[in-house]
Amino acid sequence: MENLIFGRNSVIEAIKAGRSINKIYLLDGGDNSIKKIFALAKENKIVVEFVSRAKLDKICTEKNHQGVVAQAAAVQYSTLEEILNFVAEKNQQPFLILLDELEDPHNFGAILRTADAVGVHGVIIPKRRSVQLNSTVAKISVGAVEYVKVAQVTNVAETLKKLRELDLKIVGSDISAEKNFTESDLTGGIVLIIGNEGKGMRRLTRENCDLLVKIPMCGKINSLNASVAGAVLMYEIFRQRNL
Amino acid sequence: MENLIFGRNSVIEAIKAGRSINKIYLLDGGDNSIKKIFALAKENKIVVEFVSRAKLDKICTEKNHQGVVAQAAAVQYSTLEEILNFVAEKNQQPFLILLDELEDPHNFGAILRTADAVGVHGVIIPKRRSVQLNSTVAKISVGAVEYVKVAQVTNVAETLKKLRELDLKIVGSDISAEKNFTESDLTGGIVLIIGNEGKGMRRLTRENCDLLVKIPMCGKINSLNASVAGAVLMYEIFRQRNL
Repeated sequence: MENLIFGRNSVIEAIKAGRSINKIYLLDGGDNSIKKIFALAKENKIVVEFVSRAKLDKICTEKNHQGVVAQAAAVQYSTLEEILNFVAEKNQQPFLILLDELEDPHNFGAILRTADAVGVHGVIIPKRRSVQLNSTVAKISVGAVEYVKVAQVTNVAETLKKLRELDLKIVGSDISAEKNFTESDLTGGIVLIIGNEGKGMRRLTRENCDLLVKIPMCGKINSLNASVAGAVLMYEIFRQRNL
Repeated sequence: MENLIFGRNSVIEAIKAGRSINKIYLLDGGDNSIKKIFALAKENKIVVEFVSRAKLDKICTEKNHQGVVAQAAAVQYSTLEEILNFVAEKNQQPFLILLDELEDPHNFGAILRTADAVGVHGVIIPKRRSVQLNSTVAKISVGAVEYVKVAQVTNVAETLKKLRELDLKIVGSDISAEKNFTESDLTGGIVLIIGNEGKGMRRLTRENCDLLVKIPMCGKINSLNASVAGAVLMYEIFRQRNL
């Protein structure tokens, strides 16, 4: 991913996570929270430069940098094997997410934030036709990108077959599914699929699901935001795992 | 709210909802979905003008208009009384949302979309220091803004007292609450509070709550996105109402 981290919470989380940061640019004359980040940076021996708003806007063309921009080493993608090894070390039932051609970095970031909250071990994304890790994703994740492992795979269908051989249950959501998500057994090792914002899951991905669950809706609009649907399902899985 | 509706789904929902639309601007040489909107507009006797991308960008300075911009009559806010009358007509237990100084139009739009899905009767926002209905909210709500009633109130604490006198249960979420949201009784008439993105609920709002529930988190980041937290709680309320 790109080397810029911006926004107060994102930079604070990057520092706390021990991410390798080359330099932090702070808004000259900034308020107390800027001063706190300065102190945190000093504590962690990170070089800080105070600059004008004009210079900051030039370094970071994204809006909403909130006066804080860090130049960091790139976030490394994990491999699927690393994620599976991580689960094995924790001695837990795997809880993975697969994003099936998600497009919107805001959704990706929000999903990472929720994934961190519910103990997801890793997020799998396709290498092509998918949003990738970038600075917007990092910002929206408020730093969860530092903690949740993300792996790229070249072939989603092959990956799902392989995960099923490891006894993971592949779970997708579908408005025409028979059972509501709250009535479905979501315990055990799981791969939760979150589909594309407009098109949902691809046919081949759906065919690889072991279980389709329904998120009931009673309104006029017939779909939910992808990160909202993902969060509602993640929290039900989290609830069932901790019963 | 402003008179511009943009984005394909938002404009389609506005047409379907019978919203009064003066004119729709469509991208000249647009693809099939533009042609579908053209057909839908004709069917509903709405004036259409095909224009260049440059002209569209001038009419609608927001990015992501997707080649579709409608000039519509303003969305009317409802009053709290209208929302309560609407509930009474439906003969249901009230399900209201109160946004306590929410700031981000993306969150407001996403909350409206989920609110539509779970049958929320109305959303209450403070007149001051709160995001208001605007075209970004409408876009992100993918048209739910056409269906979910929104009321502005001048005094949140007074409003909550009044609603409690009507036997509504005021519910907020707090990480230090004793009970998880899934273990709490969320049946009956309810007002769900969704707090500010950074600061959460205000002290006075919290003091007016009858019930505080916890959304458990096991990760490194200690908060959820406001629209995600709202969705997780709304779906639990929806589940308990339909048991």
